[in-house]
Amino acid sequence: MKPTITTFEASPDEGRGLARDMPVRWALEEAGRPYDVRLVSFARMKQPAHRALHPFGQIPTYQEGDLVLFESGAIVLHIAEHDAGLLPGEANARARAIAWMFAALNTIEPPIVEREQVEYLEADRRWHEDRLPLLDERIRNRLDDLSARLGNDEWLGGAFSAGDLMMVAVLRRLAGMGIVEDYPNLSAYVARGEARPAYRRAFAAQLAVFEASRGVT
Amino acid sequence: MKPTITTFEASPDEGRGLARDMPVRWALEEAGRPYDVRLVSFARMKQPAHRALHPFGQIPTYQEGDLVLFESGAIVLHIAEHDAGLLPGEANARARAIAWMFAALNTIEPPIVEREQVEYLEADRRWHEDRLPLLDERIRNRLDDLSARLGNDEWLGGAFSAGDLMMVAVLRRLAGMGIVEDYPNLSAYVARGEARPAYRRAFAAQLAVFEASRGVT
Repeated sequence: MKPTITTFEASPDEGRGLARDMPVRWALEEAGRPYDVRLVSFARMKQPAHRALHPFGQIPTYQEGDLVLFESGAIVLHIAEHDAGLLPGEANARARAIAWMFAALNTIEPPIVEREQVEYLEADRRWHEDRLPLLDERIRNRLDDLSARLGNDEWLGGAFSAGDLMMVAVLRRLAGMGIVEDYPNLSAYVARGEARPAYRRAFAAQLAVFEASRGVT
Repeated sequence: MKPTITTFEASPDEGRGLARDMPVRWALEEAGRPYDVRLVSFARMKQPAHRALHPFGQIPTYQEGDLVLFESGAIVLHIAEHDAGLLPGEANARARAIAWMFAALNTIEPPIVEREQVEYLEADRRWHEDRLPLLDERIRNRLDDLSARLGNDEWLGGAFSAGDLMMVAVLRRLAGMGIVEDYPNLSAYVARGEARPAYRRAFAAQLAVFEASRGVT
């Protein structure tokens, strides 16, 4: 059954593929699964009809028959469990790939999102400039460990998995901040993810939505 | 096979059950699985031997035969997938219970952890007092939505699941801050979790470790 996802009518990231529909699109492309997209505005996201699908009034949602899912991590895991190519077949390797998904979302991402949030929630506060070095240090502490673990490997667990997909999606949020750029092996890891044909199809699809919202054709 | 988990030799939460071994212990108790515990000091956590198990030099780890896992979310999911009682049998309900696990760790927890971190990382900064209301508001925005979704239900998805286990574990971090106390249904939800026999056994076990570290017998 063809799933339907929701995403921003006009993404605030301006088509850079940083919104949370991106890992879901990427996973669907890796799995070779066609999908439909329903666009929602910021206003509509907070209405009861959308909240019935997503308790926190956000995107993405994932509908497939009677199944309604929210949380990009849960959606990617659902896709990975039901289609080939995103989780190893061997049980222990599979569990470890899932551990990297949680590491991406619960260990690596929070200080990165915090760094982003201060830019739009606290940029006008008098403490803003003084806090940035503290936040950057928290991110670097995590990247030190991640970089040490990755070493010269191509992916975190041997073959590419949903854990890498999620980790690359999270690390991409750092682009241009001058942080991940200091870790050559992590930069190369992100570039390897971005070079995958499935990634490129997903990126092009979300960019096309943004360009349409701007009247670019 | 009996798993071994690692946890703090002397937990910084002083036995309040807020460290990340707690949801793992709770899940193992719900599943009725005996387990061994290996205590690690802060110094030892950062050594290569522990980092080989946990790339970020933290607790808990989970070892079961050849399997080595880290990330409490991944460990709880692994336990839930292999033992009865923590995930519904029906496929869609199962996927939604997992979505609540991700919601707990990726949507509800980050602003709560941020609130905790400012207390020990930025308490001496001049902006500390001014930032707290902003952080509390971010938490309340999430709890507004969570409270609305829970309504008068006992658990988030019908029967108790790993999603509730993780959500209760996350909400417990707010105890005494005067935030979750403003949501009677969420407070009652946390209390229902804490009243479960499996929770109580897990709590007692981690408290015993802390008391032993203080020489209380």
